Amino acid sequence: MKIDELLGRTGEWLRATGPMSDVVISTRVRLARNVSGYPFLTKATSDKRDELADLLKRGIQAAVKEHKWSYFDITRVGELDRQMLVERHLISRQHAEAEGSRGVSVSPDETVALMVNEEDHLRMQSIRCGLQLEQVWEEISGIDDLLEQRFEYAYHPRYGYLTACPTNVGTGMRLSVMLHLPALKLTNEIEKVLRAARDMRLAVRGLFGEGTEATGDFFQLSNQTTLGRPEEDIISDFRSEILPKVLEFEAAARQALVRERPVALDDKIWRSYGILQNARSISSEETLAHLSHLRMGIHLGRFREIDLKTLNELFLMTQPAHLQKQTGNRLSGEDRSVARAGYIRKRLNRE
Amino acid sequence: MKIDELLGRTGEWLRATGPMSDVVISTRVRLARNVSGYPFLTKATSDKRDELADLLKRGIQAAVKEHKWSYFDITRVGELDRQMLVERHLISRQHAEAEGSRGVSVSPDETVALMVNEEDHLRMQSIRCGLQLEQVWEEISGIDDLLEQRFEYAYHPRYGYLTACPTNVGTGMRLSVMLHLPALKLTNEIEKVLRAARDMRLAVRGLFGEGTEATGDFFQLSNQTTLGRPEEDIISDFRSEILPKVLEFEAAARQALVRERPVALDDKIWRSYGILQNARSISSEETLAHLSHLRMGIHLGRFREIDLKTLNELFLMTQPAHLQKQTGNRLSGEDRSVARAGYIRKRLNRE
Repeated sequence: MKIDELLGRTGEWLRATGPMSDVVISTRVRLARNVSGYPFLTKATSDKRDELADLLKRGIQAAVKEHKWSYFDITRVGELDRQMLVERHLISRQHAEAEGSRGVSVSPDETVALMVNEEDHLRMQSIRCGLQLEQVWEEISGIDDLLEQRFEYAYHPRYGYLTACPTNVGTGMRLSVMLHLPALKLTNEIEKVLRAARDMRLAVRGLFGEGTEATGDFFQLSNQTTLGRPEEDIISDFRSEILPKVLEFEAAARQALVRERPVALDDKIWRSYGILQNARSISSEETLAHLSHLRMGIHLGRFREIDLKTLNELFLMTQPAHLQKQTGNRLSGEDRSVARAGYIRKRLNRE
Repeated sequence: MKIDELLGRTGEWLRATGPMSDVVISTRVRLARNVSGYPFLTKATSDKRDELADLLKRGIQAAVKEHKWSYFDITRVGELDRQMLVERHLISRQHAEAEGSRGVSVSPDETVALMVNEEDHLRMQSIRCGLQLEQVWEEISGIDDLLEQRFEYAYHPRYGYLTACPTNVGTGMRLSVMLHLPALKLTNEIEKVLRAARDMRLAVRGLFGEGTEATGDFFQLSNQTTLGRPEEDIISDFRSEILPKVLEFEAAARQALVRERPVALDDKIWRSYGILQNARSISSEETLAHLSHLRMGIHLGRFREIDLKTLNELFLMTQPAHLQKQTGNRLSGEDRSVARAGYIRKRLNRE
């Protein structure tokens, strides 16, 4: 697959059809692995780094050859395309902006992405729409097993998998869920919930994970402990402890809004729709805030002007790189805002 | 005419068809007069006040009898109706809220309103749409002559007309123009212009004159000097000095917006339209701000979704008392905001 072919598609995780998808946007797991006998990348010479990239690329391609996976050599991918991969959650910002040999292997439906030479030699992720804890774990576990047949991972019998940063040593696993919590935000209860999440030793982040702030109505919760707890226990914590509580809080907040402030709720939803339908210039942050209101409106059955499919496409396509890829050229921030408003109007007004 | 009949009509001054109506909403002149031999109202007994009200009412009715004028006895007018008269600029807020015998006589097209027992025994106004300095002056001057045949005004050969408050002694005239200055506001030049107006000894006020702040995009400029300058000189100052400057500044600011920030300008206009079309709850202040943008859009030829007639009706009918009169009952502030949003949606979406 050529990278441009991604543009016309929506990755599986954005389909918003999975379980609990009224609150859970996506579930993601990633494993950090390093190949035994090679230095961590911070210590690797340029030659060693090239050698690793080549080794891992060939290993991955051999392991998944039947499946029409794509491999993108990030050093040969333009800046706009790198940014597009970030917006699709296929690579991290750090991977996009780094230097030296590196790449990513992507499964046809974009559920699996294997970053080569990110912070660790291998960062493998599975990401799916809605709440799919077991599914992403089984998928990445299977890939991990396949690759383990080809590489000897750096592993310590007592500590577990060895990683470039000590915070990942052990399972090397980071499980995360992206949550849409507009009602907790509107009722000013969000801080309480996020504090409780932090007390459960979870990291709270924004839409693009590490280094992005939890602004707007979207919050990523992920485990911080990788040492001393097996993967199944971490998954079980999410399944039985963490998610039921957050989902219940958000559901209660939504019902309270419907019961006690239906007019204020509809006003929020419809104003957002009116602004999206009419703005002549709009930032991606503002777009996201309005789309968030529409999403809540759709899930509460109070807004039917557009369907979830259109909404999800708007989420994806109004991001800076996707927008510029469509217009075919690089745009300044101001021109992007104009192009974004034009794209949204076209989609919403069926112009 | 019964007071309820006002509701379905738009007063002449709101037709927005007069000269310079892209910037000048309306021109208004008022004269303060007192009847010789009667004390000022602050010193009048209740009996004297009743006697005056009766005398003036009969005098006015006799003077204008051919013309189907209405006389409203404010003591018999309900609170909502009094507020409606204020919103139509037929009486002052002070007159609405005062106590004791008082009234107002209104000409059929609402251009003339004669308040009886306001601060002075008689407050006569003529108000017309657009810039009509000479027309309002001639109209009120004619009425003044008619009434002077029936009453002897309190007049001092050296000072001129005597009034309850010394700031009105002399001509007793207050000439004012209501200006729509959205571009000066958007370009942050409004303060400079208002300062210049104050330097010319003009009072700068809000939509409802004395005691209301100049907020939003609407500003009332009026003369402060009533002593030592004949009426014609004050009119001539407005005609030749004050208005050309302000109109030129606003026109230049609008052209600068069109030339330098056309997208930001259209964005403002269209977002306002989108919000008005979709809000489920909206205050009168916010409504006014959005209608102001649409008005500018219409006059700049950049917005054609609604015409000026609809816009002016929205200006009038979304005010608190007009809104409640339409729904037929008194509403809390919150319910008014919901009713207002509903009324606007109906008008804009032709629901």
